[in-house]
Amino acid sequence: MNDEIVLFDYWRSSASYRVRIALESLGLPYRRISVDLLAGEQRAPEHRARNPQGLVPALMIDGQTLTQSLAIIEYLSETRPQARFLPADALGRQRVRTLSCAIAMEIHAVCNTGVINHVLEITGGGEEVRVGWMKKFIGDGLAAVEALLDNPATGTFCHGQAPTMADFCLVPQVYNAERWGVDIADLSRVRRIAETCRALPAFQAARPETVKPA
Amino acid sequence: MNDEIVLFDYWRSSASYRVRIALESLGLPYRRISVDLLAGEQRAPEHRARNPQGLVPALMIDGQTLTQSLAIIEYLSETRPQARFLPADALGRQRVRTLSCAIAMEIHAVCNTGVINHVLEITGGGEEVRVGWMKKFIGDGLAAVEALLDNPATGTFCHGQAPTMADFCLVPQVYNAERWGVDIADLSRVRRIAETCRALPAFQAARPETVKPA
Repeated sequence: MNDEIVLFDYWRSSASYRVRIALESLGLPYRRISVDLLAGEQRAPEHRARNPQGLVPALMIDGQTLTQSLAIIEYLSETRPQARFLPADALGRQRVRTLSCAIAMEIHAVCNTGVINHVLEITGGGEEVRVGWMKKFIGDGLAAVEALLDNPATGTFCHGQAPTMADFCLVPQVYNAERWGVDIADLSRVRRIAETCRALPAFQAARPETVKPA
Repeated sequence: MNDEIVLFDYWRSSASYRVRIALESLGLPYRRISVDLLAGEQRAPEHRARNPQGLVPALMIDGQTLTQSLAIIEYLSETRPQARFLPADALGRQRVRTLSCAIAMEIHAVCNTGVINHVLEITGGGEEVRVGWMKKFIGDGLAAVEALLDNPATGTFCHGQAPTMADFCLVPQVYNAERWGVDIADLSRVRRIAETCRALPAFQAARPETVKPA
């Protein structure tokens, strides 16, 4: 078995960013291969062979090609003893998965490139429609996450005193909020936790700006 | 601790349908309380107190109120010894979670009531816009699921010979495909597996038609 780890990703994809944070947190060496979403490379047959959904990321590891960022992070957490991406107790895991899904489903999936492109097609709109869409769903979605974080189980991070999968989802979404000019000034927990995470080396190394092609 | 299990759901919500299948599979008695999505009850303060996202389902169990259907199903699978909603091996769990996310994120989240209502608002469109949106995202999404099922790990069910969380996601999505007139004639694996599941008592008991208010 070739034990090189290869991540097919795109520098600005939130789902890729989550998996990069996980890999960096584990200190696992990996090679990145860019799939250029703007050039439509995700729809090419060679990428569909890796990921039939035509999305990034895809992770080659342990002789398999894995897709879906949350399922990848759960797999890493289960198979690498040094990973603690989910809490040790069932209720804690339920909460971390709830926060992760609240971001990955209700915000990220709705703001995905394919969805937005279809919105532009049926509205005939341009950049103002794109920005309006992002502001609405990122804004409403992160406000709901802020409400979920109003909970005694929230600590330095989304859940307790160490980063979990929920933080791996939160930071890329806050990056997107800033990118699209979403007003999150009132979301004090979201902002505080994202700031704390961003100071950590694993989060730094995974940043879009760090991995952006020259 | 009050040990009654209460599910706040809506008869036609896919995410609620998934959790009903899980509860019925466990043979756990539970009381349903309807949150009428058409009347906007999900946005009322008393429901936001249960689920800050303003979505269904919410499940009261073990002295907690849990949200997010996949996180609830994982919790049930971890805490009820009779549940086998995820496979015993890490790669199998990764695959079941990938299939579940491919349905719950890329199809269901994009076709949620709140998203569709916003599409109608910005397009000024009516029923034909709604139906077109459903056909596109359910059609493309289930075609990708069909491709993911073209895999030796697919068995009688999405993964192997017993129903898993992936099947709990698939059946409600096929129900939606039929509801909106999406052509899935070519998706032979999706249709075969949904048909097999629907014959099982737990899936029958969870059907929207079974629980629809009189």
